[in-house]
Amino acid sequence: MQFGLFGAAQAQRGGPDVDSAAGFNDFIEYVIEAEALGFHSSFIVEHHFTGFGQVSATLNLLTWIGARTRTLRLGTAVIVLPWHNPVLLAEQAATLDLLSGGRLDFGIGKGYRHNEYVGFGIPMEEASSRFEESIDIITKSWTSTERFTFAGRHWKFADIVVEPPTIQRPHPPFWQGAGHADSIRRVAARGHNLLLDQFASMEETGRRFALYREAMQANGFGFDASQVGVARAFYVARDEAEKQAALDRRLTAQRRLHAISQRPDGNNTASIMAFSDTREASEESALYGNPDEIARKLEALQAMGVEYVLLNGGGTARENLRRFAREVMPAFRTEPGLRAAG
Amino acid sequence: MQFGLFGAAQAQRGGPDVDSAAGFNDFIEYVIEAEALGFHSSFIVEHHFTGFGQVSATLNLLTWIGARTRTLRLGTAVIVLPWHNPVLLAEQAATLDLLSGGRLDFGIGKGYRHNEYVGFGIPMEEASSRFEESIDIITKSWTSTERFTFAGRHWKFADIVVEPPTIQRPHPPFWQGAGHADSIRRVAARGHNLLLDQFASMEETGRRFALYREAMQANGFGFDASQVGVARAFYVARDEAEKQAALDRRLTAQRRLHAISQRPDGNNTASIMAFSDTREASEESALYGNPDEIARKLEALQAMGVEYVLLNGGGTARENLRRFAREVMPAFRTEPGLRAAG
Repeated sequence: MQFGLFGAAQAQRGGPDVDSAAGFNDFIEYVIEAEALGFHSSFIVEHHFTGFGQVSATLNLLTWIGARTRTLRLGTAVIVLPWHNPVLLAEQAATLDLLSGGRLDFGIGKGYRHNEYVGFGIPMEEASSRFEESIDIITKSWTSTERFTFAGRHWKFADIVVEPPTIQRPHPPFWQGAGHADSIRRVAARGHNLLLDQFASMEETGRRFALYREAMQANGFGFDASQVGVARAFYVARDEAEKQAALDRRLTAQRRLHAISQRPDGNNTASIMAFSDTREASEESALYGNPDEIARKLEALQAMGVEYVLLNGGGTARENLRRFAREVMPAFRTEPGLRAAG
Repeated sequence: MQFGLFGAAQAQRGGPDVDSAAGFNDFIEYVIEAEALGFHSSFIVEHHFTGFGQVSATLNLLTWIGARTRTLRLGTAVIVLPWHNPVLLAEQAATLDLLSGGRLDFGIGKGYRHNEYVGFGIPMEEASSRFEESIDIITKSWTSTERFTFAGRHWKFADIVVEPPTIQRPHPPFWQGAGHADSIRRVAARGHNLLLDQFASMEETGRRFALYREAMQANGFGFDASQVGVARAFYVARDEAEKQAALDRRLTAQRRLHAISQRPDGNNTASIMAFSDTREASEESALYGNPDEIARKLEALQAMGVEYVLLNGGGTARENLRRFAREVMPAFRTEPGLRAAG
């Protein structure tokens, strides 16, 4: 089993007494330690206009992290394609892939926060159309060594060859988050890798994993368990009181994120962040507890075929990271050869 | 006097035998050594669709360099604003400024290559209008701690607050290239810093420098010589034969760059890269020669008030860089306090 991280830094805006860089720098040091502890990857979000300093320029933060690390896979979870010029984005991503020696995992999504679409002045109704068109342009940009012209619904490019080249061939892997069966089938239709969210129950996660595996095989892409990253919140607790306090904090944080992603009309179906608003649901899906409790949940995931778990500690608590690496991870580390057969 | 670098990396595209990253990696190591040798900054170009691997994602390459350096100013020369979403660009630039501890020098321009505008599907006739609008949006994005709405000719944003915050306050310095008197006055009207090109003669450079200084003072911005970066090609030659061979190489490279920036109608007035196509003009402006010859040219610049020279070696020849640092630079190094008074 491989373990990665997903999450975000926060940069506080404030007066002269506020060290705005502290949140980003702390996150960078957290990720660097994670690499040293044996973590495989760090997937970072993209968000805009929140007012509390979420990461907006995801590829830039990842580029900095890339220069400070050696083996860590550098993931986006996810870049929201409809907001970006796809050619500029292809160039930025290729530059990171080139500089990092081929470590980019290019997670992409449609976005689900109404206020971000409003902010950019882009109709949310165009999300799917823009998303699909951008995938086509980016894929073409990365793979065409000849000049090409593209005339789509949203973008037009004439006689371009996109540089620099990526290191990974034919191109860095695309990752998409999906939950609904139709969405998972669309990801598998592209042959893209799959991100499963941190809120779905174990049972639901198992169904989604199996559906994706079947669809990938049916589409002739084959299947490797390393192509599915299952997100899970994690907290390695010393005792039951620590665990319950951590669950309380998680529910509070979830409700805040849920609130800022609402549409005025209440039609939030575009969100892949299926939301578990009960304490029981939260506890069921999360890897919260002592090392034994967490190990049993990982074994349950492994029994479904899951071999790649992306952990979110809800912050950058080093002790939590170290406990996981020292008290949970060793029993689940497998050789790459064994993992591929999983 | 301070010395910076300006130039570009190149990433070769090719088959499995080509190390595409070599050009970028070599450039990065060149810049890292330059910092150690006492250089103050590195300004990097932005270009697209050339087919020979020029830097397209300038801020991403600078971000990598930022993580590998400690004091070096990280400059763009220049980001072409009309091709970028100004809010995404403000976020990317702010992220670099934040991560680097406030080392970003934000050089901006309108672009002058017809084929790049065609490639992006943006009418070159909109260059000035897009450029000015983007400056307004980026400045607002960096300085507003309150949410704002912007409805311009080219861009609309609603109820946004742009994050992360920059470290430099009120924001990273803008730099603009300009040559014509009207253009220089427009730069000074904004209070932006000035980049002077590498091809203009000493005399012309002196006129432009003086015009900018007067305009800045007349506009109430005050003036500091560190606000003008004068670009110059440089080659520290061991003898006359080396010097002449280097001048030959430079003329050939210039003609290639000139050729790819042509408009079909021959109307290339948008270029700030005023082109010296005679050997005599090239030799007059360039810092080519033995250390004494170069020192005399630097003294001439200094006599005009110039205190910041941006050097372009036309590549990443380490020996040239080291010769300059060891045999030319020491006589011109001044303390920051003295420099500010220059």
